[in-house]
Amino acid sequence: MSLADSRTASGTPVRGRPRSEAVERAIMEGVMKLLEDGVPLAELSVERIARTAGVGKATIYRRWSGKEELFVDVVRAAEPPGPELPGTSMRDDLVALLEQHRRRGLMTRSSALLHSVYAQMKSSPRIWAAYHATVVEPRRRLQKEILRRGQANGELRADIDIDLVNDLVFGPMLVRTLMRPDADLPEGLAEEIVDKVLEGLRPVSPPPA
Amino acid sequence: MSLADSRTASGTPVRGRPRSEAVERAIMEGVMKLLEDGVPLAELSVERIARTAGVGKATIYRRWSGKEELFVDVVRAAEPPGPELPGTSMRDDLVALLEQHRRRGLMTRSSALLHSVYAQMKSSPRIWAAYHATVVEPRRRLQKEILRRGQANGELRADIDIDLVNDLVFGPMLVRTLMRPDADLPEGLAEEIVDKVLEGLRPVSPPPA
Repeated sequence: MSLADSRTASGTPVRGRPRSEAVERAIMEGVMKLLEDGVPLAELSVERIARTAGVGKATIYRRWSGKEELFVDVVRAAEPPGPELPGTSMRDDLVALLEQHRRRGLMTRSSALLHSVYAQMKSSPRIWAAYHATVVEPRRRLQKEILRRGQANGELRADIDIDLVNDLVFGPMLVRTLMRPDADLPEGLAEEIVDKVLEGLRPVSPPPA
Repeated sequence: MSLADSRTASGTPVRGRPRSEAVERAIMEGVMKLLEDGVPLAELSVERIARTAGVGKATIYRRWSGKEELFVDVVRAAEPPGPELPGTSMRDDLVALLEQHRRRGLMTRSSALLHSVYAQMKSSPRIWAAYHATVVEPRRRLQKEILRRGQANGELRADIDIDLVNDLVFGPMLVRTLMRPDADLPEGLAEEIVDKVLEGLRPVSPPPA
C-alpha cells in the first residue's frame, strides 16, 4: 500500500505550497507506518503521529481538525483513485464504477492491513461518519448522477426511484465485497451485474433470442 | 423483544423433556436480562448467566458448548420466525423472504438493544461465525432453493449462476437494511425489488406497454 501519486489523482485538494505537500505526505506516511506496526486506531494520538512524522503537533492541527479527519485522508489516499469513466454510455460508466468496487474489494481482501483499518474504522462512529461524508457519499452522488443521465438519454427506465436503481445496480457488488468475504469476485463480474440488471431496467427489452 | 413461542417456531430443535425446555427458557431469558441491563457481551460469562437464571453452570454446559452458542440461540429466538412461504410461485416466495429481511431491518432500527447486540456480535469473530453458520447460511440455502425451483419451472433464466441471482435479488435489500441505516424501508419495497429484478431475469420479457 503506497501513498505515492494517488493523493492528487483521487481529487483531494492540494493545500498550500509544494513544500507543505511534502510535509503532509510525511504525516500521512507516519500514520501508515504506525498502522503497519500494528498500533490500534484508539492509540493513534496526534502526538504520536507528530513524533513519528518528525513534525510538531501544531503542524498537524494546521491541516486537519483532528486524528479522525487525518485518518480518513490516509485511507482515501490508500484507496485506488476513482476510475476513468469512458463516457460512451451509462452502461459503460456503470461497469467502470462497479469494476472499481470489485478491485477495492480484492485489494482489501489481500491486505491484512487494509482489512484491519476498515474494521477499526467501522467501530469508531466518528471516523466512520467522516469516511462516509468524504468518501462514500460523493461516490453515491456520482453513481446517481450517471444513472440520472441514463434516465435522460433513454438507457434507463425513468419510472423508478433513483435511490432504488442505485441499490439494484450496486447492491449485489457491495454485498459481495463487504458482507461476504468468501464470495467470488471474478473478472467480468461488473459487466455481468450491470447487464443482468439492465435487461430489466431498460425501458424497452430486447426480444428473446 | 420476547422469547415467547418463537423458539420452536423458528425450528430450533427441542432438547430433552418439557421440564428441560423451561430451564432453557430461563437461561435464555437470563441472557436477555443481562443484555437489557447493558452488560457488554465481553462481560457475559457463563457464570454470570447461571447466577442470573438461578441454575448451575453445569446446567448451561449440558445444553450449550459455550456462551457463544448460547448467545446465538438467544439472538435467533429474538428474531422473527421465518415467514410462511405462499408457495404459489417463485416470485411470491421471494417477496415473502425479502419482506422478512425488511421487517428484520425495521425491528433492528427501532430496538437499541437489538442494534447493540448485532454490533457486538460482529466484533466477536467466534460469535459472528456461529451466527453465520446457524442463521445466515440456512437462510441463504432456502433462498437458493427457491431460486432453483424458479429456474426449474421457467420463472427464472437458467443461464445465470444461482449465487449471482441470489445477490441480485437480495443484495439491494441487504444493503438498505444492513449498510445504510438512513435508507427508506417502505411498505411494498420487497415487491418492487423482486419485480424490477425479475423483469430482467425472466427468460421472456413482456413487450413494452
